[in-house]
Amino acid sequence: MSIADAPAIPPLTPPRRVLLGPGPSPVDDRVLRSMAAPLVGHLDPLFVRTMDEVQVLLRYVFETNNRLTIPVSGTGSAGMEAAVANLLEPGEEIVICINGYFGERMHEMALRAGAIPVRVECEWGGPVDLDKARAAWRASNARVLFAVQAETSTGVLQPLAPLREIVDERDGFLIVDAVTSIGAHSIGVDRNRVDACYAGTQKALSCPPGLAPVTFSDRAVRKIQSRQTPVRSWYLDTNLLTAYWGDGGGGQRAYHHTAPISMNYALHESLRLVAEEGLEARARRHQRNHLALVAGLEAMGLSMLVAPENRLWTLNTVRIPDGVDDLAVRKQLLEEFDIEVGGGLGVFKGKIWRIGLMGAGSTENNVLLLLAALEKCLKGQGYRPLGSGVSAAADYYAGA
Amino acid sequence: MSIADAPAIPPLTPPRRVLLGPGPSPVDDRVLRSMAAPLVGHLDPLFVRTMDEVQVLLRYVFETNNRLTIPVSGTGSAGMEAAVANLLEPGEEIVICINGYFGERMHEMALRAGAIPVRVECEWGGPVDLDKARAAWRASNARVLFAVQAETSTGVLQPLAPLREIVDERDGFLIVDAVTSIGAHSIGVDRNRVDACYAGTQKALSCPPGLAPVTFSDRAVRKIQSRQTPVRSWYLDTNLLTAYWGDGGGGQRAYHHTAPISMNYALHESLRLVAEEGLEARARRHQRNHLALVAGLEAMGLSMLVAPENRLWTLNTVRIPDGVDDLAVRKQLLEEFDIEVGGGLGVFKGKIWRIGLMGAGSTENNVLLLLAALEKCLKGQGYRPLGSGVSAAADYYAGA
Repeated sequence: MSIADAPAIPPLTPPRRVLLGPGPSPVDDRVLRSMAAPLVGHLDPLFVRTMDEVQVLLRYVFETNNRLTIPVSGTGSAGMEAAVANLLEPGEEIVICINGYFGERMHEMALRAGAIPVRVECEWGGPVDLDKARAAWRASNARVLFAVQAETSTGVLQPLAPLREIVDERDGFLIVDAVTSIGAHSIGVDRNRVDACYAGTQKALSCPPGLAPVTFSDRAVRKIQSRQTPVRSWYLDTNLLTAYWGDGGGGQRAYHHTAPISMNYALHESLRLVAEEGLEARARRHQRNHLALVAGLEAMGLSMLVAPENRLWTLNTVRIPDGVDDLAVRKQLLEEFDIEVGGGLGVFKGKIWRIGLMGAGSTENNVLLLLAALEKCLKGQGYRPLGSGVSAAADYYAGA
Repeated sequence: MSIADAPAIPPLTPPRRVLLGPGPSPVDDRVLRSMAAPLVGHLDPLFVRTMDEVQVLLRYVFETNNRLTIPVSGTGSAGMEAAVANLLEPGEEIVICINGYFGERMHEMALRAGAIPVRVECEWGGPVDLDKARAAWRASNARVLFAVQAETSTGVLQPLAPLREIVDERDGFLIVDAVTSIGAHSIGVDRNRVDACYAGTQKALSCPPGLAPVTFSDRAVRKIQSRQTPVRSWYLDTNLLTAYWGDGGGGQRAYHHTAPISMNYALHESLRLVAEEGLEARARRHQRNHLALVAGLEAMGLSMLVAPENRLWTLNTVRIPDGVDDLAVRKQLLEEFDIEVGGGLGVFKGKIWRIGLMGAGSTENNVLLLLAALEKCLKGQGYRPLGSGVSAAADYYAGA
């Protein structure tokens, strides 16, 4: 055999960025260190314990008792595809509420699953139009409705109770995207009777990307078990995954795939951090830093994209002032301050910035630093801030 | 909202196992440390460089110039599904050579992709029956043939050139599973004209599980691009993945999913270790330790499952002697010596052990330790070794 010369590639030396974009978020050192632990086999007693405990912790964060609550071995998008590919059969309708980029993605995934999407077109930057959603539900034969709780592309928080009311009109199933809400905003899977909910690990859970927590209600599991056709993905088939993960009770496990051991160590540690802080305290922290940031941005004369009552605490969307160069500001933030913020997607490309305050990144220090750095960048672009964003945020913290 | 009490879960303290099972394999400390590096965004210049370099290194290991050479963001099974789900359309035949567990898995995945599997049933523990494979190819209308280069369930190495000859009879496509060969046995994707090849990271690459290196030939890419139906998985659609990963030339990247940042750090470092050692030296090391282990096992009177000319160097399958308790021996190895070896799958359940010598685990120390520990366990079961396995292996090393 003749083999090419080995490429000479230098080691990576990643800088310590201040990650204030739409994700990944900063990861606590405890979580980073957890991945440096030695590997064990994927059927080792230590790993079986890890799996059991990850399930217990995920049920806490999803606020559910669902038996089928596991991390899928892929990123958030794999969780999304797992939800639709399992719950829907070819030829089945699904009502998809589209008020941002990720509703569009679900439309695409539903097509791949062979389902028939019924689109509920809503304005990007606002919540789902409930009248439209109800009308679409009534006009269709769909048994499943999809909505995004936290639209990462727009910064909108979607209330879930009114969607549950709609699907209850004929005993329907509710799929919810919680990628950017989990670990910050309450999902309340059981309280809201969500039938399938998925998330990623890389937002307010502050774990590196690579796993997708999912949970399915018992009635969703029954629907999946009574499918007429096999799930179109073997890798994401929850029937097989359930046999591998078990119910968290330490029972027998049937080999499916080799779980990502180190990523599960990381998820275990990041969920332990969530449990130590407590979901309610964590929610309050995210809310507080969000409000301080908004106070600062508005004091500078910037305007938020989303109405106050619909804003996510994890992802803040702010309009880019006229005459300010989107890319130049983001480049300066990255190169001069090591700060990452996100640009707009779709119709908001070049129109907004997406500022994430997620998990370990949602801190008073980061809010003040971002406001200070942004002020400098904006001034460099000829924008004259109305007032001091840093002062306004500091005043908010002092009074909060 | 009412939230359940936070579960009190203690931290994980994984033991440092001697991982000599079918995978995951031991991971070099340099790779473990690489995952503890801080995260950057998935579109950060540092991460774009990481992606480019991972592609360069993967092409070296696959021995290919294929443009489409990337790590899929899932485990080896996700790579397997990516190969079949992209290359096959519903209604299309695929000849599947089945001489172990993973041929069966491919059969299942092909069904999920809507394809029509044509089974070539071969004896487990031997290579593919080429006459049968040729007959099946000629009798079918399949354009695609699948085989496993390294059957993790049996320890058999499959020569690829004769399979290429078969599919060349009518310009066919060859899919190869290289999960347990990559980084040890030469794959020679270009030399053998393999059209789609996938692997995992957790065997002889000695990276934690969580990514699946895949490579597709240009003609495979053309077949995929001219599909009449969309790929059934959005997450695994190589058309979308290509737009995200680019060609490794630093061009534009379209957002698809958030790549597992830390896992890509780990893969980058583990591939750098492969390049530093060199593929040929690495192959020789795997061969040498394999031969020493076999010398030791046979000296003790144990017999290998696979004929010498068909043996993998990475995974050694040895028959469990009559009267010896499979589970008791593996339990003692794990609890007394911290050594993991694998049990048999399918027809070989309880009949064989699977001893992995993969990547960082393929060392003289591990061979001697395993033989010493196994001798003790076997004696505890009343088995009287013919001779000293340790001595035979040491003699082999002294003479090699």
